[in-house]
Amino acid sequence: MRLRNKPWAKDYITEQAHIVESDPAAWKGSWQEKFPSEQPLYVEVGSGKGRFVNELAQQNPQVNVIGIEMSESVIVSGVEKAVEEAKSNLILLQEDVNYLTDFFEKGEIDRLYINFTDPWPKNRHAKRRLTHEGFLQKYEEVIKREAEIHFKTDNQGLFEYSLESLTSYGFQLQNVSLNLHESGMKNNIMTEYEEKFFRKGMRIYRLEARLHHNE
Amino acid sequence: MRLRNKPWAKDYITEQAHIVESDPAAWKGSWQEKFPSEQPLYVEVGSGKGRFVNELAQQNPQVNVIGIEMSESVIVSGVEKAVEEAKSNLILLQEDVNYLTDFFEKGEIDRLYINFTDPWPKNRHAKRRLTHEGFLQKYEEVIKREAEIHFKTDNQGLFEYSLESLTSYGFQLQNVSLNLHESGMKNNIMTEYEEKFFRKGMRIYRLEARLHHNE
Ligand SMILES: C[S@@+](CC[C@H](N)C(=O)[O-])C[C@H]1O[C@@H](n2cnc3c(N)ncnc32)[C@H](O)[C@@H]1O
Ligand SMILES: C[S@@+](CC[C@H](N)C(=O)[O-])C[C@H]1O[C@@H](n2cnc3c(N)ncnc32)[C@H](O)[C@@H]1O
Repeated sequence: MRLRNKPWAKDYITEQAHIVESDPAAWKGSWQEKFPSEQPLYVEVGSGKGRFVNELAQQNPQVNVIGIEMSESVIVSGVEKAVEEAKSNLILLQEDVNYLTDFFEKGEIDRLYINFTDPWPKNRHAKRRLTHEGFLQKYEEVIKREAEIHFKTDNQGLFEYSLESLTSYGFQLQNVSLNLHESGMKNNIMTEYEEKFFRKGMRIYRLEARLHHNE
Repeated sequence: MRLRNKPWAKDYITEQAHIVESDPAAWKGSWQEKFPSEQPLYVEVGSGKGRFVNELAQQNPQVNVIGIEMSESVIVSGVEKAVEEAKSNLILLQEDVNYLTDFFEKGEIDRLYINFTDPWPKNRHAKRRLTHEGFLQKYEEVIKREAEIHFKTDNQGLFEYSLESLTSYGFQLQNVSLNLHESGMKNNIMTEYEEKFFRKGMRIYRLEARLHHNE
């Protein structure tokens, strides 16, 4: 059953307190205690309607997953899915990624996903792109030293920008794909936006990034 | 007049000693003395028929240009062009890029171009790609600390590989274009291969790379 009445979203989200944590700062540094098992923590920023985090958690019971999405009317769909499927390794946060370092301790995150994030094409909005240097600083604070950032987008301009932004920050790249759905990649989990763009025949770009450390 | 008889290429090249330097190792560290003016030195590796280096030298009299191409029957076209246009700021070397460090002193090169280099798609041939780590080491030895490497290709797989190879080596990227001829880029100099692929409607990929130095 899907909720149609978005005005009820707020109450619905509040009721699902086991899935949507309303006070994430209280768990900073101890997220593992909130999950049944202590295992790698994967976080998606801007998780939208939550299809990706739901499938990620489902397919990988040996991983704990957190999705962060600030929009109430959007995150609610992901909550519904999580409720239906009763996964114990998925938590959602209705929060702004700008406050990421309030919610996670240094090195607490094992992998970070950024999927089809808003491109903000105007230069004056560059700071809002989730691959802007300002966000990369936050990610660096909360991810493990060897953690990977996995990034997918349909947006050519955003991908070009992100290549520059990530590598200027000191990230190195691996498994770059300039046409994901023709690359023969296995185990790709489609997001809502990906499905939409893929159906239109658009190219999907993907990369994995890791901070370059001088040995 | 274009030479048709490739068997004459060898003699022809030898005759054009002012354009094709037959003993580049002798000039290691003193290339500036070989040009009329002391000015930035730009080198293209795998310069093919030399259209790019000829135009680069023509359009930029304030730059000295060297093209390196190992194939005799290929380089000869570039020599002809250079002879016809009588440029004093262009030198060609019929040499293997593997010996680059025999020909140039540490920091002697201000910019390095790699255009439409052979993709060598098989993994066992990866070492032959001009963006393989082995070549990057050579480039690092001979380019200035802040020098840029400019790379263009039509080959998606080679571009993906090069993104990984360059950034793993510690290069950062700028002015990345995933569709050069729709990016509105000005002053692009087309190479022979570029012209061919562009006419077929293929995407051209481009990037600029600089070594990341921790301040
Ligand atoms: C274009 S949608 C993509 C959603 C999903 N990742 C997908 O691929 O289908 C981007 C989402 O990121 C969310 N978002 C953007 N900036 C955010 C921020 N600073 N904090 C939290 N969420 C954000 C938006 O609300 C939106 O739902
Ligand atoms: C595909 S062609 C491209 C030529 C030209 N840059 C263009 O864009 O039209 C590549 C050229 O690089 C040359 N080449 C490949 N490896 C080389 C090496 N190790 N040293 C010198 N030249 C090389 C080949 O002989 C060939 O002419």
